[in-house]
Amino acid sequence: MTELLLIGIGTGNPDHLTLEAVSALRSAEIVLLPRKGADKADLADLRRMICERHLSAQGQVIEFDLPRRDASGDYLPGVRDWHEAIARIWAGLLAGHPASRVALLVWGDPSLYDSSLRIAGRLREAGSELTIRVVPGITSLQMLTAAHGIPLNTLGAPFLVTTGRRLREGGWPEGVDTVAVMLDGECSFAHLPGDGLHIWWGGYVGMPQQILIAGPLGEAGPRIIAAREAARAEHGWIMDIYLLRRG
Amino acid sequence: MTELLLIGIGTGNPDHLTLEAVSALRSAEIVLLPRKGADKADLADLRRMICERHLSAQGQVIEFDLPRRDASGDYLPGVRDWHEAIARIWAGLLAGHPASRVALLVWGDPSLYDSSLRIAGRLREAGSELTIRVVPGITSLQMLTAAHGIPLNTLGAPFLVTTGRRLREGGWPEGVDTVAVMLDGECSFAHLPGDGLHIWWGGYVGMPQQILIAGPLGEAGPRIIAAREAARAEHGWIMDIYLLRRG
Ligand SMILES: C[S@@+](CC[C@H](N)C(=O)[O-])C[C@H]1O[C@@H](n2cnc3c(N)ncnc32)[C@H](O)[C@@H]1O
Ligand SMILES: C[S@@+](CC[C@H](N)C(=O)[O-])C[C@H]1O[C@@H](n2cnc3c(N)ncnc32)[C@H](O)[C@@H]1O
Repeated sequence: MTELLLIGIGTGNPDHLTLEAVSALRSAEIVLLPRKGADKADLADLRRMICERHLSAQGQVIEFDLPRRDASGDYLPGVRDWHEAIARIWAGLLAGHPASRVALLVWGDPSLYDSSLRIAGRLREAGSELTIRVVPGITSLQMLTAAHGIPLNTLGAPFLVTTGRRLREGGWPEGVDTVAVMLDGECSFAHLPGDGLHIWWGGYVGMPQQILIAGPLGEAGPRIIAAREAARAEHGWIMDIYLLRRG
Repeated sequence: MTELLLIGIGTGNPDHLTLEAVSALRSAEIVLLPRKGADKADLADLRRMICERHLSAQGQVIEFDLPRRDASGDYLPGVRDWHEAIARIWAGLLAGHPASRVALLVWGDPSLYDSSLRIAGRLREAGSELTIRVVPGITSLQMLTAAHGIPLNTLGAPFLVTTGRRLREGGWPEGVDTVAVMLDGECSFAHLPGDGLHIWWGGYVGMPQQILIAGPLGEAGPRIIAAREAARAEHGWIMDIYLLRRG
């Protein structure tokens, strides 16, 4: 029986680790560490640094190449095939390195737009003797609001968390005045009317390169688009997230 | 100039603290620690334990009684008066104990249904020379999903975070299949049709008393109501949170 630890590591600052995450990591015999291609080498470097700091002398890091997702067909089937491919790689690594406790370092928190839990579920369905333990970590959404010093919700009010794609395709959602947007490669806020909306945007939140821009959407939107483009050209990649509030 | 640190401490497990929170606490000269009345003494005890573990020798804890919110009138004005009363207490304590770095330990994460940022904003508006720094912490929502080992969102889909009051008054929200509910003193899920909904519920998540119940709403709902009542009778208080998913 193997215990698979899905450890949330926060969003780029090694000090986002919780004390619980540190002990979990220290208890792991093996850490599976994905390599995601040259443009995101900084991210693998952060994971390596975390392992160097916190793994015990018995802990071993096993790196593997993350397969690329086939983005040519439909979105959901493409993602499912990709999960299946990753599950097969994990299964192979687990079979080749029997251990009672194996850790995966998950960006942010494992519950939020992350596939590790789904991939681990596939392994179990395919017959792996696996227990899964999730160690929560700071999300990019919390880091965004912390960096701007703002609350996520207004008093007693709901908020929606969604993706760039949904915002583009569906416009402003029904029944909420606060919307957080993740997984947006295309500045989808530009499709919204600039009037009556405020935006708090962050690139690389929690990381040394962090960029923050906030203001009324009509005015701040174009500044964000320009800053995002420049930062992506400089670093070769970008991750960004934002909060929109109406009224 | 005083730096006010709003430090997220997670939801009842002292190991939820991040390494960043530990250093922030260690750098504080003063920690303001609210007492909330006898029924929630466990919560003040956790804060005291965190201070004992992590404050530096120079750090000093100042306890104060949190005023009670007047719940007799309308909700929003009642909350605003309460925030104003707390702001006055903070201002008095800050004036009486000049320090360059003062910390408040915030339950969960300061961005999520918490008033510390709003109260600190009032202090600034009233003329206090204050800079505010937010240190994110693990939320009860992350602890709920971690404990159940489930993702918050389904693949690429949005989710709504709302309150018990809103769910009761508005029913199932438009356009989402996943709803997280907080601040619900009344098992508001009982107002929803039991069919086609799954619930993952948690009481005292992250704490030694943690209780987890999950299942189709029609079947799990009554079990949750009974377990909640029994736990509240036993401990004198309860905090609970849940995730509902359609389909
Ligand atoms: C696949 S999701 C993973 C989210 C992660 N599990 C979390 O808890 O934040 C990736 C998306 O998260 C957001 N994100 C993650 N890290 C970020 C960072 N450091 N700065 C800005 N956005 C970030 C971006 O919206 C990105 O498209
Ligand atoms: C005033 S809000 C504060 C939320 C907090 N800032 C956070 O990040 O989780 C209080 C609500 O959070 C939820 N909550 C907080 N701690 C909890 C715990 N340990 N177990 C279950 N629910 C909790 C409950 O829904 C409760 O009504």
